Amino acid sequence: EEGGKTGSRAMIGEVRPRELDLVTHSGKTIAQGIDHIGGDSARLDEVRREPNSLAAFLELHVEQGGVLDHEGIDIGVVEGIVGIRRWNVTVSGFANHAGTTPMDIRQDALLAGARFVDAVNRVVRSVPGRQVGTVGRIAAAPGAPNVIPGRVTMSLELRDLDMNKIEDIYQRIHREAEDIGAATGTKFDLEEFYLSSAALADDRIKAVIAESADELGLSRVAMPSGAGHDAQSIAKLGPIGMVFVPSVGGISHSPQEFTKPEDVVNGADVLLKAVLRADGTL
Amino acid sequence: EEGGKTGSRAMIGEVRPRELDLVTHSGKTIAQGIDHIGGDSARLDEVRREPNSLAAFLELHVEQGGVLDHEGIDIGVVEGIVGIRRWNVTVSGFANHAGTTPMDIRQDALLAGARFVDAVNRVVRSVPGRQVGTVGRIAAAPGAPNVIPGRVTMSLELRDLDMNKIEDIYQRIHREAEDIGAATGTKFDLEEFYLSSAALADDRIKAVIAESADELGLSRVAMPSGAGHDAQSIAKLGPIGMVFVPSVGGISHSPQEFTKPEDVVNGADVLLKAVLRADGTL
Repeated sequence: EEGGKTGSRAMIGEVRPRELDLVTHSGKTIAQGIDHIGGDSARLDEVRREPNSLAAFLELHVEQGGVLDHEGIDIGVVEGIVGIRRWNVTVSGFANHAGTTPMDIRQDALLAGARFVDAVNRVVRSVPGRQVGTVGRIAAAPGAPNVIPGRVTMSLELRDLDMNKIEDIYQRIHREAEDIGAATGTKFDLEEFYLSSAALADDRIKAVIAESADELGLSRVAMPSGAGHDAQSIAKLGPIGMVFVPSVGGISHSPQEFTKPEDVVNGADVLLKAVLRADGTL
Repeated sequence: EEGGKTGSRAMIGEVRPRELDLVTHSGKTIAQGIDHIGGDSARLDEVRREPNSLAAFLELHVEQGGVLDHEGIDIGVVEGIVGIRRWNVTVSGFANHAGTTPMDIRQDALLAGARFVDAVNRVVRSVPGRQVGTVGRIAAAPGAPNVIPGRVTMSLELRDLDMNKIEDIYQRIHREAEDIGAATGTKFDLEEFYLSSAALADDRIKAVIAESADELGLSRVAMPSGAGHDAQSIAKLGPIGMVFVPSVGGISHSPQEFTKPEDVVNGADVLLKAVLRADGTL
């Protein structure tokens, strides 16, 4: 799944050709990765499904947050999955000698990039809600201690259940970037490279998951998913729902991610019973 | 020369063993680089010279700044060379999922690193003078758009003709780093990895350079060097002086660095005449 649920997004026709050329953390492009695991990146169009072609889609996942673990609850019944948008941010300044270029005439792309990272945090936190914003990747070129960076590239990611809220926050960040550029003699370019729409879980599927947990004597709580999941894309083809099991310490995307074996079993049991119930009702 | 005048620093015994293991922009360590160009990194101790073992040392260089080019002056007679100190800065936070980790419980090493970059600029500019401070290198790990960075590494470089001023500014930056760490749930470690002491040019050598320029009918100006040079290390062994020629647009450490052929010739002529004059007087 890591790398961005390309498979489920291809099923709804959301994977754009340029995406396939992106180089991932593995060093391979998305296309090379698909081919590497036995797929055929040239035939992505053929996997596309039509809306209303699925009766139901259920997905089991670790929470990737700390709510279930902290509260001691067995099962999360997912209410919806946040939308995600990602941008490549490029800051263009002017690379120059760090010793002979006075402070007041620099066009330091990293100084501008640093103020951008701080602005993202400030803007995202300035409004109430559960929205999150992250700069997870940064590189400065040429990247030597004695050279003022002339170019910085970063990622920007925003998530929320409300796509309009993401757009509003993005617009505010974009304006901040223009102000920072004007103040530092640099230029910002923000190019969106990833979109995953928010999706609500289907009431009937939430119900069969809850009933299954109850039947198994497991405690449960309704909760949103802050992470993206395949179900989010598949929601465009039919009703979806998700089962969460606890992540110890809420840690994920880290070597320390861990879910206890008994919680994995609980999740599989709930998934099985929910599928059987859905098969009889949807 | 690029990479830090290791040769001249070895001549005064300033190259510490751990420096040889540093990986440079080339991908090679300093030791591998020395061996690659025909040296022997195991015999650095043997190149050490004793103080007062040299009668004079003259060095010709492009200005790497814009003063001569902007003012239309042929030759810079260098008054002194700034000192340089460099640190590796490591910020330790906690890598976690960018979707499921609320903004208020993050330990975002890149947010802390960004505030550090801004603080360096602010502190360096807060006092009068020609001192400069630069963060030229940055990396965030794990470095994915959907993961909060758990670790950031950066370089910090400070330069001034007054080593005490560098130390004062460093202490202020260090305190800012501790405040940023406390505010963001991260930890800063600053480790110095490079030191090049400030050095003044010898009055007699400045005189022979000025006389040589005058004899050749070239305009000249006395000026400090904001960049580090071999002469700076050799100053510990004997009297030094430097000849500067114009850098077009003041650009250096960039593919656009350029010095006109006639200026190169002027510089070589001044150097030759100055060496001959020094040979007769020092």
